[in-house]
Amino acid sequence: MKQLEMLYEGKAKQVFRTDDDDVILMHYKDAATAFNNIKKATIEGKGVLNNKISTIIFGYLKEAGIPTHYISTLNERDQLCRRVKIIPLEVIVRNIVAGSMAKRLGLEEGLRPSNTIYDICYKCDELGDPLINDHHAVALGVVTYDELKRIYDMTAKINEVLTGLFDRMNITLVDFKIEFGRTSDGQIVLADEVSPDTCRLWDKTTNEKLDKDRFRRDLGRVREAYEEILARLEALKK
Amino acid sequence: MKQLEMLYEGKAKQVFRTDDDDVILMHYKDAATAFNNIKKATIEGKGVLNNKISTIIFGYLKEAGIPTHYISTLNERDQLCRRVKIIPLEVIVRNIVAGSMAKRLGLEEGLRPSNTIYDICYKCDELGDPLINDHHAVALGVVTYDELKRIYDMTAKINEVLTGLFDRMNITLVDFKIEFGRTSDGQIVLADEVSPDTCRLWDKTTNEKLDKDRFRRDLGRVREAYEEILARLEALKK
Ligand SMILES: Nc1ncnc2c1ncn2[C@@H]1O[C@H](COP(=O)(O)OP(=O)(O)OP(=O)(O)O)[C@@H](O)[C@H]1O
Ligand SMILES: Nc1ncnc2c1ncn2[C@@H]1O[C@H](COP(=O)(O)OP(=O)(O)OP(=O)(O)O)[C@@H](O)[C@H]1O
Ligand SMILES: [Mg+2]
Ligand SMILES: [Mg+2]
Repeated sequence: MKQLEMLYEGKAKQVFRTDDDDVILMHYKDAATAFNNIKKATIEGKGVLNNKISTIIFGYLKEAGIPTHYISTLNERDQLCRRVKIIPLEVIVRNIVAGSMAKRLGLEEGLRPSNTIYDICYKCDELGDPLINDHHAVALGVVTYDELKRIYDMTAKINEVLTGLFDRMNITLVDFKIEFGRTSDGQIVLADEVSPDTCRLWDKTTNEKLDKDRFRRDLGRVREAYEEILARLEALKK
Repeated sequence: MKQLEMLYEGKAKQVFRTDDDDVILMHYKDAATAFNNIKKATIEGKGVLNNKISTIIFGYLKEAGIPTHYISTLNERDQLCRRVKIIPLEVIVRNIVAGSMAKRLGLEEGLRPSNTIYDICYKCDELGDPLINDHHAVALGVVTYDELKRIYDMTAKINEVLTGLFDRMNITLVDFKIEFGRTSDGQIVLADEVSPDTCRLWDKTTNEKLDKDRFRRDLGRVREAYEEILARLEALKK
């Protein structure tokens, strides 16, 4: 497998072509951004940690039968993944109210609603990734109602697997954001990453935040939180 | 039927108690507001026009089997309606993209999507009536998933009736906002009003706007537009 030219560079990762048109190389950087790119910093080692964390988590998801883009991990910062056309939706699951939802609806952060909340946002930086609903997504032409049903079904299953996994690590999975893509043969698979950059993770005993909110809210010890997540994931395997 | 004390005063209407606990008197004012109450004006005669227009439209909806709060029209500005507990949702139907949706999604006003768009907003002035989705509405405790299904089914039927009605008036029903409430015996019924204050109505031949956008966008001839809607509704009856 040869690494060829960069296809695009995101805030947290770079994506490279390889000599297989259906495979990309995903390179994890140390850059951290928040609030639609207004706040920026480098968190030494974050890329290495997220690569390892996402690798382990995609392993569990694969085991549970979720189709994903993940192929293999090459080294500390690089993964091989199936190349997909990303569906421009951020699919968000909220088991507990926090962040933008708390603000938007005037609800207390930490509230556990009786139902699981699914949000979709339209991935479009110029529009500020607005919250939309299923009808908007279909009108935008990015997805059909049937595909949305598939995506929500997969997302519910992913939430089940991840909630159980974090539970065993004494962590509450508060919420998370995932992305889906279409492979060249038309399959919809989970893409991108699952890491403390894309999840809210609260220690069940201390309520301590072990995720990117430490960066967003200047709580300090950001890298240490990501290290703690990796350590607990690795402890599970033993 | 005796008119008793005012229960509450909205931007466009006043609601009074009557000697029947299940009946309210709704009084239509001439006040017009837009942009969450930032822009205000008086449009002489608007209350009279909207009372007449809403009366006729609720008549068509009743005929089509839609359960509504409407009982009778007392005079130029007053209706009797079944008293309901308003469900704090604005239910919006969009047959054509316009207004906030065009802005939010970066779409051209006037685009006709292949699907019908349903939006719900949380009626809460302090939060600016934010767009939400079904999961949020259930988490907020304002409605159950089953009630939402009922509401969407009724809304689709209302859209069908109103689209057909305006069509016969050579008018495109671009979008509209409705509200639902619960009667004392637990039935969900269409409440509030249907008028040029709550619909976008475009003349099919000239594309002229015949609705509140004339006020929002300072297009002039606001009352004349409302008069035109009433005249075309009355012409239908002949
Ligand atoms: N399997 C894949 N094939 C192609 N592109 C992918 C794949 N998985 C993820 N991507 C995309 O690669 C980019 C990863 O970069 P990064 O996460 O840094 O993006 P970002 O700055 O968050 O930008 P975005 O707003 O697009 O998510 C994202 O655009 C993501 O959607
Ligand atoms: N049948 C009914 N029983 C009780 N209240 C009703 C009924 N129909 C409508 N209402 C409520 O009466 C009020 C009507 O006033 P108006 O339309 O002027 O309100 P508004 O200024 O638009 O405020 P809101 O943001 O609540 O809609 C609204 O709050 C509406 O929800
Ligand atoms: Mg990203
Ligand atoms: Mg109103």
